[in-house]
Amino acid sequence: MRALQLTEPGTLEIREVPTPEPGPGELLIRVGASGICHSDLHVLHLPFKVREEPLTLGHEIAGTIAAVGEQVGGRETGERGVVYLCWSCGHCPECASGNENVCRAAGRVAMPPCPGLGPDGGMAEYVAVPANSFVPIGEMDFVAAAPLADAALTSYHAIRGARDQLYPGATAVVIGAGGLGHVGIQILRAITPVRVIAVDTDPDKLELAAECGAHEGLAADAETAARILAMTGGRGAEAVFDFVGVDATAKLSVESVGPNGAYRMIGLGDGNPEITAGPAGGPGLPWGATVRKSYGGTKRDLIDSIALARDGRITAHTQQFPLDEGARAYELLEQGRIRGRAVLVP
Amino acid sequence: MRALQLTEPGTLEIREVPTPEPGPGELLIRVGASGICHSDLHVLHLPFKVREEPLTLGHEIAGTIAAVGEQVGGRETGERGVVYLCWSCGHCPECASGNENVCRAAGRVAMPPCPGLGPDGGMAEYVAVPANSFVPIGEMDFVAAAPLADAALTSYHAIRGARDQLYPGATAVVIGAGGLGHVGIQILRAITPVRVIAVDTDPDKLELAAECGAHEGLAADAETAARILAMTGGRGAEAVFDFVGVDATAKLSVESVGPNGAYRMIGLGDGNPEITAGPAGGPGLPWGATVRKSYGGTKRDLIDSIALARDGRITAHTQQFPLDEGARAYELLEQGRIRGRAVLVP
Amino acid sequence: MRALQLTEPGTLEIREVPTPEPGPGELLIRVGASGICHSDLHVLHLPFKVREEPLTLGHEIAGTIAAVGEQVGGRETGERGVVYLCWSCGHCPECASGNENVCRAAGRVAMPPCPGLGPDGGMAEYVAVPANSFVPIGEMDFVAAAPLADAALTSYHAIRGARDQLYPGATAVVIGAGGLGHVGIQILRAITPVRVIAVDTDPDKLELAAECGAHEGLAADAETAARILAMTGGRGAEAVFDFVGVDATAKLSVESVGPNGAYRMIGLGDGNPEITAGPAGGPGLPWGATVRKSYGGTKRDLIDSIALARDGRITAHTQQFPLDEGARAYELLEQGRIRGRAVLVP
Amino acid sequence: MRALQLTEPGTLEIREVPTPEPGPGELLIRVGASGICHSDLHVLHLPFKVREEPLTLGHEIAGTIAAVGEQVGGRETGERGVVYLCWSCGHCPECASGNENVCRAAGRVAMPPCPGLGPDGGMAEYVAVPANSFVPIGEMDFVAAAPLADAALTSYHAIRGARDQLYPGATAVVIGAGGLGHVGIQILRAITPVRVIAVDTDPDKLELAAECGAHEGLAADAETAARILAMTGGRGAEAVFDFVGVDATAKLSVESVGPNGAYRMIGLGDGNPEITAGPAGGPGLPWGATVRKSYGGTKRDLIDSIALARDGRITAHTQQFPLDEGARAYELLEQGRIRGRAVLVP
Repeated sequence: MRALQLTEPGTLEIREVPTPEPGPGELLIRVGASGICHSDLHVLHLPFKVREEPLTLGHEIAGTIAAVGEQVGGRETGERGVVYLCWSCGHCPECASGNENVCRAAGRVAMPPCPGLGPDGGMAEYVAVPANSFVPIGEMDFVAAAPLADAALTSYHAIRGARDQLYPGATAVVIGAGGLGHVGIQILRAITPVRVIAVDTDPDKLELAAECGAHEGLAADAETAARILAMTGGRGAEAVFDFVGVDATAKLSVESVGPNGAYRMIGLGDGNPEITAGPAGGPGLPWGATVRKSYGGTKRDLIDSIALARDGRITAHTQQFPLDEGARAYELLEQGRIRGRAVLVP
Repeated sequence: MRALQLTEPGTLEIREVPTPEPGPGELLIRVGASGICHSDLHVLHLPFKVREEPLTLGHEIAGTIAAVGEQVGGRETGERGVVYLCWSCGHCPECASGNENVCRAAGRVAMPPCPGLGPDGGMAEYVAVPANSFVPIGEMDFVAAAPLADAALTSYHAIRGARDQLYPGATAVVIGAGGLGHVGIQILRAITPVRVIAVDTDPDKLELAAECGAHEGLAADAETAARILAMTGGRGAEAVFDFVGVDATAKLSVESVGPNGAYRMIGLGDGNPEITAGPAGGPGLPWGATVRKSYGGTKRDLIDSIALARDGRITAHTQQFPLDEGARAYELLEQGRIRGRAVLVP
Repeated sequence: MRALQLTEPGTLEIREVPTPEPGPGELLIRVGASGICHSDLHVLHLPFKVREEPLTLGHEIAGTIAAVGEQVGGRETGERGVVYLCWSCGHCPECASGNENVCRAAGRVAMPPCPGLGPDGGMAEYVAVPANSFVPIGEMDFVAAAPLADAALTSYHAIRGARDQLYPGATAVVIGAGGLGHVGIQILRAITPVRVIAVDTDPDKLELAAECGAHEGLAADAETAARILAMTGGRGAEAVFDFVGVDATAKLSVESVGPNGAYRMIGLGDGNPEITAGPAGGPGLPWGATVRKSYGGTKRDLIDSIALARDGRITAHTQQFPLDEGARAYELLEQGRIRGRAVLVP
Repeated sequence: MRALQLTEPGTLEIREVPTPEPGPGELLIRVGASGICHSDLHVLHLPFKVREEPLTLGHEIAGTIAAVGEQVGGRETGERGVVYLCWSCGHCPECASGNENVCRAAGRVAMPPCPGLGPDGGMAEYVAVPANSFVPIGEMDFVAAAPLADAALTSYHAIRGARDQLYPGATAVVIGAGGLGHVGIQILRAITPVRVIAVDTDPDKLELAAECGAHEGLAADAETAARILAMTGGRGAEAVFDFVGVDATAKLSVESVGPNGAYRMIGLGDGNPEITAGPAGGPGLPWGATVRKSYGGTKRDLIDSIALARDGRITAHTQQFPLDEGARAYELLEQGRIRGRAVLVP
């Protein structure tokens, strides 16, 4: 079968590889669609090899069960679904309470195995996955479903964890209306009554944000924090979701979140929010506000995201590419020229 | 009457001042005891005058109602109580939901008026306070009760806000077993089943921590984080309460808190925890952990703290000084020579 | 001034009464609109006198501050607002945490003083109210605002308390699309992503429910529970809000709520849900489901409801009557001929 | 091997049966201890056969892994543990969020398969169980561990679900200090600061309650509710845990719980609490109080319970019997002559 693989740091190639066999406890998925995530660019540009042999990328996988490994209960070939991306232990106290995204087996750094980031991912004709990572989608279109596996999951998790702040009359700021952010805006509109302010450097992204239901769109510049304060009576936003995570957006987040507010770092740009304990260091983080580095989501978050999509409450905007043009799709993403989510179709 | 006043930056004096009159909506309290808080040292050493006229310090006030201002309902002279330190608006959405410590009237910086920090405080024979700040204590001793107004309140608020992490089998780290920390340890023992690890540079404070119920005591040094990780299977503590807040303790907190854990900045040492978005910046803050700059507490937190004290579940360790020796008590506190809480008795 | 008063059990009269004077801590409100609540019918038909002198009804009051009593801070004549209906003590632990609707001063039966149910209510040209019961509404129309004081408040409180059940893919049943229910449906649509099934005996009410956003409408009959089970895969609804509360609706609620679901009794029809401990008594209440007799709401619930209305997310459907026709409006309500909420305008 | 089996309604026999083989996904457990639960008496006295062939009872199982079925990952012979009693589907939204005790596969009645209640249970030398039901206990004694599987699990679940009510100064009533109740009292003391009032008809049980940490013990009679109201200032208890569930205790629960309180039905005595919607039916259930029929607990609840036991915070009081004397142990339980928990040792 064909697969889009990372062969050397920075190099993507379509290669012919053996079709995997589902091992015990696994399913073989015939990939229907595989989303391209901004976090793949981090993997692509790591200065070292993630693993010795070439790695098939892709952690947003939708498809059909093509074969069922031994001793898998309750699954049949032909079922349609998406793949939950935290391949966790299933036994530890966190997994037992449904927090598989912070599975203890992963250690303190706590990123459980993820397709396309160690195990082969979904940018191929087939992929083998743990049976318990399969979540049914009914008759949903694969291209529409694939982005639910990360873009919706991760946004939903961050938003759900901030729901105490998302009350009537509250304001949420979404920084970055890209692959995750444009879905995050829709989730905010679907499950909360808050006013949504989108922030982006790109006018096209702000236009997409408006289509997704953002009440306001702000160009990101030196005045953005001041503008958000002005729009919130000087107090700041009840929640700020930073889907970018560079120094400038970290600074904006600290300066625009309000007391007892929620600032969630979702983007992986390695920005430093420069917060300090105590009142002496200037305004800084307001009292009672929380900062959280949010990772992925729980399997229940994925189930909930699928429910939202099936009810028509959220729709990932997608640009579809054949698998063979995967490298080009990555280039466009890197250039900021993808509107919504790029999705590869084998 | 006599009052301990801040007359110039860094200068405390006992002065003879007029006994205040309770205005409309106010109570006159005959002070029974007034606690000395580490945060007073910040005020003492501010490089500018907090206000033009001399300021009576003291925000941990216990005493008896000596006179009732006009139009105060439901209060009588002779009642014994403590003074809730957030003198908030009472009307805004936050006050309406009992979050007076982030009262909207205070603006984004969100520290509502506090006795001894603008209005005159309790280090005097009498103090006038808003009627709704008075919380009854029954027959409790004033010296025992005064520290509840901040040392217990602030600890309780930070701990209550982290209760999702304080489950059976979890570990809480308390950094700094001083005025707040030694009460915080007792609160953790009273309302949760967690293992408590106390960290301090001072062996006497660790001894006090053990008396207060800490299961383990660790000297603060370069190995502390590694030791906490070793004691928690490499995963870190479910909650870290930093009652110091300098750079070293901020660093320790980030390095010892676990995934989905709670790191609460309570001490005002202006330390920088140096967290970053994304995985690229070294271990940093684990996924899902939250950082929160916790301020004071709600009136309900004070009521709960009083309930714990009346039930004998928490007891502030106090060193008692006559009002006239207040300046000396501050010196001892600054030298780290107070065990538990210093309390002035007029 | 004129007032609509309950003079004898069952008898309403327009009477000329003295305009009240606002006492200390009170405001005099010039009534702009006063909603008629189904619970007034209970009061109207009590077989005894609620109080010796005639009682002005009306606990859904919107209006303008006409005079400010002594020692009221922060309020001015000319402000527009609604009156929060729990006139609670403000001091007890429940009030301190913003749960004024279960104020301890009210005792175990726990219905704090309420205008129109002891103190005179708002069906008059003027009414005196405690200053802290006044909640601003900005420029909202009085007729639109009055129903927020109970119809929105009570619905919002019941729904907010069940929010753990109101997740994507969940189903909520609203029994009774009357004065409260038709607002409850809108609140469910505004703050949650759930599917809403409305149940009523009256086709007109079901039509109103559909206008309010209900996804489905079911005529109440012997098959309703079976139909709801069929619509929820046999499992029942995640939440059932019974705005009627008679035996038949109590039975329907028990039979249609699902495991871990929320059944909220809001209507005061004195129905008996006939639940039992243990599995032996037939299907009964499913495991994990909760039953709650919900009363009114908190002041914060009112603030949130006003925010929803000001953002255009909820709109009470009203039928407007001059004060003099109040008795007729009550008759229409009793006959089930009011669509939405009847509101009196002095 | 020998097994204690229910052969006919009401008849228990020790029988020689084949040792089970662990199927795919199963473990064979060599039983170390198996607790006797009051709910077994319900099964024993059902007027019909639970299943055609004789049924081995026992859902509180502690033991050692004797054999590992095919395709079970992460388990080895020799591991010591207890068996989680909800043998749920693992896939549905409830299982995905760790609420296996209300697994959707069980339907609306929602009691997932349970050993000793369909599948064979643990009152035998060996039992086969699903691999994911095994929870490690380290070096804990089997007799001490077995009651954690239900007596602790079920109590912990009910208490954890009421934790919003279990604040400093609050009162919890425990009705029935038997197999579950005496552990429930300890859990309340370990994880909350509340005052615990135990109620029982049996002075020996009240003595056990006191040993377990109950602050007060009340004989169950016509005055009990009045006494609880007197002890709580007339307001009632913040939480009532009814481990009996007959009419008298249901009545007591309704009459002694306070506003916004939690009444949890855990005992399966089929009692009717006689609550009604609305104020007209006498005092009834206070406003805001919730009634919940609590079943079992989640796997995480079991993990937490084990943590409490390993930390020495809770200890089931046990009476040990050889397997062959199982029938006699059931008789003693039925006569109310077991103190704590009877445990069979094969």
